[in-house]
Amino acid sequence: MPKIKNILFIMADQLRWDYLSCYGHPHLKTPNIDRLAERGVRFDRAYVQSPVCGPSRASFYTGRTVFSHGATWNMVPLPIGELTLGDYLRPNGVTTAVVGKTHMIPDREGMARLGLNGSTDIGCLVSQPGFDPYERDDGLHPDPLLRKKGGKLRYNDWLRSLGYEGENPWNDYANAGEGPDGEVLSGWYLKNSNLPARIREEHSETAYMTMRAREFISEMGDAPWLCHLSYIKPHWPYIAPAPYHDMYGPGSFSSAHRSQAERRDPNPVFEAFMKMEVSRTFSEQGTRETVLPAYMGLIKQIDDHLGRLFGWLEETGRSDDTMIVFTSDHGDYLGDHWLGEKELFHEESVRVPLIVCDPRKEADATRGTVSDAFVEAIDLVPTFMEATGARAASHRLEGRSLIPLLRGETPEDWRDSVFSEIDYAFYAARETLKLGPSDARGYMIRTDHWKYIHFKGFPPQLFNLGEDPDEFIDLGRSSGHEQIRQEMHNRLLERLLARKNRTTMTDDEVMEIRDRENESGIIIGRWQEPAAAE
Amino acid sequence: MPKIKNILFIMADQLRWDYLSCYGHPHLKTPNIDRLAERGVRFDRAYVQSPVCGPSRASFYTGRTVFSHGATWNMVPLPIGELTLGDYLRPNGVTTAVVGKTHMIPDREGMARLGLNGSTDIGCLVSQPGFDPYERDDGLHPDPLLRKKGGKLRYNDWLRSLGYEGENPWNDYANAGEGPDGEVLSGWYLKNSNLPARIREEHSETAYMTMRAREFISEMGDAPWLCHLSYIKPHWPYIAPAPYHDMYGPGSFSSAHRSQAERRDPNPVFEAFMKMEVSRTFSEQGTRETVLPAYMGLIKQIDDHLGRLFGWLEETGRSDDTMIVFTSDHGDYLGDHWLGEKELFHEESVRVPLIVCDPRKEADATRGTVSDAFVEAIDLVPTFMEATGARAASHRLEGRSLIPLLRGETPEDWRDSVFSEIDYAFYAARETLKLGPSDARGYMIRTDHWKYIHFKGFPPQLFNLGEDPDEFIDLGRSSGHEQIRQEMHNRLLERLLARKNRTTMTDDEVMEIRDRENESGIIIGRWQEPAAAE
Repeated sequence: MPKIKNILFIMADQLRWDYLSCYGHPHLKTPNIDRLAERGVRFDRAYVQSPVCGPSRASFYTGRTVFSHGATWNMVPLPIGELTLGDYLRPNGVTTAVVGKTHMIPDREGMARLGLNGSTDIGCLVSQPGFDPYERDDGLHPDPLLRKKGGKLRYNDWLRSLGYEGENPWNDYANAGEGPDGEVLSGWYLKNSNLPARIREEHSETAYMTMRAREFISEMGDAPWLCHLSYIKPHWPYIAPAPYHDMYGPGSFSSAHRSQAERRDPNPVFEAFMKMEVSRTFSEQGTRETVLPAYMGLIKQIDDHLGRLFGWLEETGRSDDTMIVFTSDHGDYLGDHWLGEKELFHEESVRVPLIVCDPRKEADATRGTVSDAFVEAIDLVPTFMEATGARAASHRLEGRSLIPLLRGETPEDWRDSVFSEIDYAFYAARETLKLGPSDARGYMIRTDHWKYIHFKGFPPQLFNLGEDPDEFIDLGRSSGHEQIRQEMHNRLLERLLARKNRTTMTDDEVMEIRDRENESGIIIGRWQEPAAAE
Repeated sequence: MPKIKNILFIMADQLRWDYLSCYGHPHLKTPNIDRLAERGVRFDRAYVQSPVCGPSRASFYTGRTVFSHGATWNMVPLPIGELTLGDYLRPNGVTTAVVGKTHMIPDREGMARLGLNGSTDIGCLVSQPGFDPYERDDGLHPDPLLRKKGGKLRYNDWLRSLGYEGENPWNDYANAGEGPDGEVLSGWYLKNSNLPARIREEHSETAYMTMRAREFISEMGDAPWLCHLSYIKPHWPYIAPAPYHDMYGPGSFSSAHRSQAERRDPNPVFEAFMKMEVSRTFSEQGTRETVLPAYMGLIKQIDDHLGRLFGWLEETGRSDDTMIVFTSDHGDYLGDHWLGEKELFHEESVRVPLIVCDPRKEADATRGTVSDAFVEAIDLVPTFMEATGARAASHRLEGRSLIPLLRGETPEDWRDSVFSEIDYAFYAARETLKLGPSDARGYMIRTDHWKYIHFKGFPPQLFNLGEDPDEFIDLGRSSGHEQIRQEMHNRLLERLLARKNRTTMTDDEVMEIRDRENESGIIIGRWQEPAAAE
């Protein structure tokens, strides 16, 4: 199989698995993403390692679970010792750049201990983390945060060059609407979500990042690259530029996917999340009706830009030597299950779209097919490594390459469950539950039929997905389900033990080491010297 | 409580918990170590994190389990991101030096990735790992290994200055005996263990390292220090200098602690270890009789040197401001359970002596007492930190400070089990069992009454320590014990989940972060701006 030359690794942020037409959304048509699925494999059961931006992305970039890499939440730095995509692909000559969001925080303390800082080449690289920083933009720039970070934002410079004025046009134009008297209404408040953003569509963030990806790809010429095109949208602030702000109305989405049964004697952790402001807001009449049109419009906009980008790749011949991957870092409850945001483990939160288009003829047989293999975010690093011919790193990587599946060959020992986890120390739910900083943890295992969630210090959740695909009936404390709970608990242990901790020695080195020991002169437990040869 | 100024952290290598008179050995008298126990607390249930030198020490030095730090075996480098004793104590002005063995391998690949090498100050420090390298000497120097490492060994230089000749007097004198015709007989072969080493006692390794520790302490003058005095002995090569080589005879030790029952239908992993050369050798008639006198003599020698060292500390006033800790990195089967070496989880292997003498008056109440609290190797780093007033690091450290126990206050939530683990990929047992490089793993949990060992891919072991303190009867597959096995299995899961993975953010920072979020201008799930104040 020839090597893949380039990889376009597209990530949307907070995009639910079911808000694309190829994944079955009845009203939101995403023909360009759908066409990518027709040219590749659409994974129908893809899960993230944690339904929160930072830890999820850290798993996408390191190929390791949060349990292993340790960046358990958005503001928790990725430890300097963790290797990322760039570490794996760069030695093979693949420029590995980010255009958009990574949400990664540099491990400044770890760097300082080793005498590194961001101003050196190595320091800069590890703080990105591992990506060549072509256009790093984490996409959230309220005024106080922007000022704290020094006020510099390339997107703002660009907007100002186009006539959008002020210190922070990101905030005042791209993520704000206007009232009837021309007053600026912040996109941070959900009631403004149905307004058009105060910006021309072609100057919005999605347009800008797509343009920058094209520039990066053009600049690369014939050199191999991985471009991580990482959109902030449809993540909040939920506000879309015209015409995307009012393409969808109440007829475009069903009512919230929730049941009164869920509020009766709920699991304490679930209950604490239901009490959070975002959950309460999304559970009120009117919120979904105001927010969903914007959420859907932002997705539609991404689809349109991807259509143009894919067309350009086609024209320039890049489609033939570029693997294209489309996914998301987690979903969005949007009021389903009486919740807002993400964090917990219902399908709306933890399941994501994942489409992989491999241009090689070996993948022809699977084009346009749907895979129901259990796939995890950690599978992408080994996939990209195998695709570009990088040396395997099975002593560190906890996922598996999807390349066999793209060839239509599902390995017999492919996983039969998926794993995800949460550190919710940073949420009001921890305070509600009066937990210490290391006690707000949850761990999910789902199999074909069951979903089990172990919460440290609280009863588990259990859903029978065969009989209750809605996840409305929590069997976590039900009598009669002790055995399946224990079975799932044992699976969780097995999964934790699969952690790759021996990261400093390759499997090959392990296999060779006994020979080296013999050469060392170290002799263990031998009674006497061998008899001299005759 | 005033701060402790200095710490003398003494480690013997491969010293069983029960080969000291204060721990009940009937024939081997160790009055100097016993006197230390009279001045401090003797911990009767102290366990190592892995019964192998390298991983055990990495846990002693990092305060983290092997599952977390990842140096799973002797030749596996400690990942560069792992902090050690020196990182914690040095900021408080405590020089943290090693005299003797650490067995730590630098993470050269991790260093190279970050542009570091051993020739810079930081590179040197992290490769030690974290200790100021006063007299680093890992104690195993067969000719091929010594040559591979460049042939330099300070102890050899010293021996040569004393008239011991050749390239490697460590090998030819300190660890060899002589035959009747003056021929050199290698200490590597067990049949030679009852010979006196070809070296004067005061030139042997134990004498040399004790002298070097004195030199270090003298050089430190009034500045605070931690001295890790780390003897290679009584680790093999089992050969002792006169007069220690023949102080003990067959009357000084009982027969091997083993039962024919253990060989009937044994657990497959246990069986594979019983088949290894060292186990077979130690199971043969004559081996114990030849080796044990040397093993015991080497311990007696350490005790004598410690007596002189303690006396000198007393004379120089250092006893008043120095915490003294004595322990070992693991035990030695010596033929018990039909095994040689260590690696598995019988008490002979995984349990170690641990004596802590705190000179402060707050510890007066516990002097000469015995604690039966479950204590682990990872408890020493937090103990040393609390003693010297270092800032706590509960986000990384997995052990607990022993200081409360030294004051006679056992916290109510003190642990009720101990945990240990093994990566046996590097042993013949892995080949016997035909395992892959990441599949040779075992994990032990012991409580007051039970010891449970989970072997990946094999049945567990279970011992009822109440009824079978000898650990002869493996209930790992016995019907009727399913429930206790499951309970212990669940405990194992709980212990694994206690892994500290969020190492880049302190607990205090976690608790403060929600305030910072409010300051950032990020607003999540709010319907509208607050009404303006009147």
